[in-house]
Amino acid sequence: MTTVTNGGRARIGVLISGSGTNMAALLYASRAADCPFEIAVVGSNRAEAPGLALAAGEGIDTFAIPHGGITRADHDAAVDERLRGAGCDYVALAGYMRILSADFVAGWAGRMVNIHPSLLPAYKGLDTHARAIAAGDSHGGCSVHLVTPELDDGPVLGQTRVAILPGDDAGSLATRVLIAEHQLYARCLAALVKADRARTGR
Amino acid sequence: MTTVTNGGRARIGVLISGSGTNMAALLYASRAADCPFEIAVVGSNRAEAPGLALAAGEGIDTFAIPHGGITRADHDAAVDERLRGAGCDYVALAGYMRILSADFVAGWAGRMVNIHPSLLPAYKGLDTHARAIAAGDSHGGCSVHLVTPELDDGPVLGQTRVAILPGDDAGSLATRVLIAEHQLYARCLAALVKADRARTGR
Repeated sequence: MTTVTNGGRARIGVLISGSGTNMAALLYASRAADCPFEIAVVGSNRAEAPGLALAAGEGIDTFAIPHGGITRADHDAAVDERLRGAGCDYVALAGYMRILSADFVAGWAGRMVNIHPSLLPAYKGLDTHARAIAAGDSHGGCSVHLVTPELDDGPVLGQTRVAILPGDDAGSLATRVLIAEHQLYARCLAALVKADRARTGR
Repeated sequence: MTTVTNGGRARIGVLISGSGTNMAALLYASRAADCPFEIAVVGSNRAEAPGLALAAGEGIDTFAIPHGGITRADHDAAVDERLRGAGCDYVALAGYMRILSADFVAGWAGRMVNIHPSLLPAYKGLDTHARAIAAGDSHGGCSVHLVTPELDDGPVLGQTRVAILPGDDAGSLATRVLIAEHQLYARCLAALVKADRARTGR
């Protein structure tokens, strides 16, 4: 069941573990009057994540649920409760460095998205840019995908290719891909919300 | 006279002086199939501007016209010739650290845009973030505006407010505002192109 209602904007819960730059990109994208979503809440497994202070400063509700001394299932259940309590229609993962339990993922099937810094299905997991450079690839990039129980494996909603330049290292490539990520994530999330609304008529 | 033709995408010439992150944001935004613009050419007054290598790596036509040993009018005329030769419909300034001659600006009236890191009309010119912090402002932000002969003075097409956080310095605020800039610039440029097309029927 989706709680998206006609006329209002879809409410997004964003989960982060660090600086939250993709969260910030979604937040500033949502400042456009015609953006079909708004950021309802930002949560983290790390109370000190800089992105939480950023969101709070922008007037967004935030929460931190540390993952230490608690089972994965219990942690995810606590996060889920906060997201649902905030009336979220969708969940956007933005640098959330957690493996998610199957129940949590199933509860948001079709309504949880992630951004991954590679041209999926290439380079699932970590160190994507270093691997792409080491392989001699001409391009890296980023992908927005629906989240399924398998890591970085859900249906891809959109991708942007980013040229690998002579002399690139993982850091320099990451800096450019991040610019592409910020454009792609906002665009794909808006398109998902619009497509769901067109399909459900709400 | 605008050369925008029905069906094709508006051709954008981007002028940069440095890393060109706003140029990159426009470029990656233009990778969306429904984006109404494409980057036709990227030019700079500095041959070593990193953004030129980025653009060239992405297959974009580039040019560098150093500003040393040449009058402002002659430099601007040379830049203008390159932009027109590339069939540009619009010019987007993206960290182009040059004062523009009146003739150059007049030649692109209504079709040259700039992004400025403040909530105009506040803080025209340089050091905008430091000035906003020193003034005790609650928010900084960014503005996209049409370029007129007066510096940072043309009609504002869009703005995004960015909260100033406790402990912010000019650098930390600039980092967050830049994320907002990248969203705002792509959105405002797309809106300008669409509005012009709706108005002219082309």
